[in-house]
Amino acid sequence: MILSSEKIAASAIVLLGIVGVTSASEVGLGRKVLVFPYETDFSFVALIPQKEMGLRAFTLCMRVATELEGERQIILFAYRTPDYDELNVWREKDGRVAFYLSGDGAFFHLPPITTFRTSLCLTWESRTGLAAFWVDGRRSTYQVYKPGHTIRPKGTVLLGQDADKHLGDLEALQSFVGEVTDLNMWDYVLPRRQIQALHYGHKITKGNIFDWATIEYQLNGNVMVVDDD
Amino acid sequence: MILSSEKIAASAIVLLGIVGVTSASEVGLGRKVLVFPYETDFSFVALIPQKEMGLRAFTLCMRVATELEGERQIILFAYRTPDYDELNVWREKDGRVAFYLSGDGAFFHLPPITTFRTSLCLTWESRTGLAAFWVDGRRSTYQVYKPGHTIRPKGTVLLGQDADKHLGDLEALQSFVGEVTDLNMWDYVLPRRQIQALHYGHKITKGNIFDWATIEYQLNGNVMVVDDD
Amino acid sequence: MILSSEKIAASAIVLLGIVGVTSASEVGLGRKVLVFPYETDFSFVALIPQKEMGLRAFTLCMRVATELEGERQIILFAYRTPDYDELNVWREKDGRVAFYLSGDGAFFHLPPITTFRTSLCLTWESRTGLAAFWVDGRRSTYQVYKPGHTIRPKGTVLLGQDADKHLGDLEALQSFVGEVTDLNMWDYVLPRRQIQALHYGHKITKGNIFDWATIEYQLNGNVMVVDDD
Repeated sequence: MILSSEKIAASAIVLLGIVGVTSASEVGLGRKVLVFPYETDFSFVALIPQKEMGLRAFTLCMRVATELEGERQIILFAYRTPDYDELNVWREKDGRVAFYLSGDGAFFHLPPITTFRTSLCLTWESRTGLAAFWVDGRRSTYQVYKPGHTIRPKGTVLLGQDADKHLGDLEALQSFVGEVTDLNMWDYVLPRRQIQALHYGHKITKGNIFDWATIEYQLNGNVMVVDDD
Repeated sequence: MILSSEKIAASAIVLLGIVGVTSASEVGLGRKVLVFPYETDFSFVALIPQKEMGLRAFTLCMRVATELEGERQIILFAYRTPDYDELNVWREKDGRVAFYLSGDGAFFHLPPITTFRTSLCLTWESRTGLAAFWVDGRRSTYQVYKPGHTIRPKGTVLLGQDADKHLGDLEALQSFVGEVTDLNMWDYVLPRRQIQALHYGHKITKGNIFDWATIEYQLNGNVMVVDDD
Repeated sequence: MILSSEKIAASAIVLLGIVGVTSASEVGLGRKVLVFPYETDFSFVALIPQKEMGLRAFTLCMRVATELEGERQIILFAYRTPDYDELNVWREKDGRVAFYLSGDGAFFHLPPITTFRTSLCLTWESRTGLAAFWVDGRRSTYQVYKPGHTIRPKGTVLLGQDADKHLGDLEALQSFVGEVTDLNMWDYVLPRRQIQALHYGHKITKGNIFDWATIEYQLNGNVMVVDDD
């Protein structure tokens, strides 16, 4: 995507705003759903982590639904530091779900993400490199991905848009359209029974990076906060 | 596949090593998973049976998951004596699952083997020739296959690779990539209710050829033993 | 299919034999499965009804599994009088399931009949013409088919083959390959809760035309009677 320098500048200001102006943040999304109703290049939600995201392991979970189909990338989660896409999760053009730790990604064949909610978790551990997606409590085949790698701290987490190579370079055709709820994140790998309990809506140890009930977030553009009903 | 005689020789030594050097074997995989993370022509696990595999009936069970898709053979289980592929189980190019008792195979239309674990059993009895796969406790249609046949003893069992025509002639494009756990084998046909109990993780009569909890095995190449979680 | 008159004659004798020589019949298939292992033009099972099949309503149930796929007709049940296919059930080339009462058929889009057993019932009532298939206890949409029609008595019921236009004209490419069990038939329409109970293996009113536990049958060609396990 080619952007005029003016547009880049404008977008960058918006994004810097998110990070800088914490007073505009809101707190807590328990029993709420984020609805991204349209394809845009300006709607996103910034999430402010409870602790720095210098990570050697993590579990990231969310419930997600989309009407989008066909040959189109969809950004599901983006964590970026100034120079790197530290942790990005995509639904790829070919339907696979992939995640990227600053570089080439790991691609998984999962059941399609549909108009019905999918409970999606992703676990990764630096020591072994073992990475897996969990769909409605069922684990995918492990892949060995970037053993020894460390995710860098002090970045920005976005839902709805990918803050591409330049912070603030947003692209409508990669944007997320649909619903996200119950996003939680831990700085370690949850055991199977906890991921399954989470899928079934039971209470488990609260996320120490993101806890949906008390999450700090900032809405931008056309995103709705709706009762989960 | 064309191999230089040097490579054949080298591979043969590796494989002979498995059978010969039992001191290098390890014992017991209870609550463990074998992860074959990459496509290779050198990663495999040799399994040492508790009793000779001269068989006129058997039940072979395992839980298996793979990311591999599309037009590619995948070896799931290989038992070979010097001159014969005694008992091979394949995911075929066209997606069917087949097994071979030294000769032409029996092909079954089963649900695809995916990134999520499939509980797969295979039963065969020489007297009637009745053969069936069991997927997550459900039996396929019976096929009549090689009634009267006897599987020969004193061979080598491999996971991850097919020890083709020449013992040690391995081929990356047939190799297994994914996970195997809970492999058990009996020298008789288990009744339906036991196969179903096994699928649901209940305890049943231990395999008298292979018992995953106490199985003797030898790792070769790039295979990981991971906690089942 | 073109048959020499000799072959027609020979086949006709076989079929006449079934009906004529009742002393060769066997009785009772409780906990047994009929396995049709190969595609043939000579393997079938004749079923002898408990009462004449002059019918103005019926419920026909069976459990059926097949490995056959693709563009091929499969006969599931054939009841023929000298001049008419009185009641035939087919898996059609396009995958639909159809039934015919001497003439054009009624076609239903059902889930595919696979290698795993499908519990299949068919109900029809002359008064209203209401016809439906029931798959694993779930009813298809009703179709109105031949209201006022009466099925003629004094015919022959076959599994495995369609006794085409001429009694005894069998065709391998329409033959059934797979398994049939628990075939029961009533001369009235069973209510939903009984069809569902049957699917779950509960005891209900015994079939007054066919009762699997006490059914009178005659095996022909390559058909196996196997313990249901």
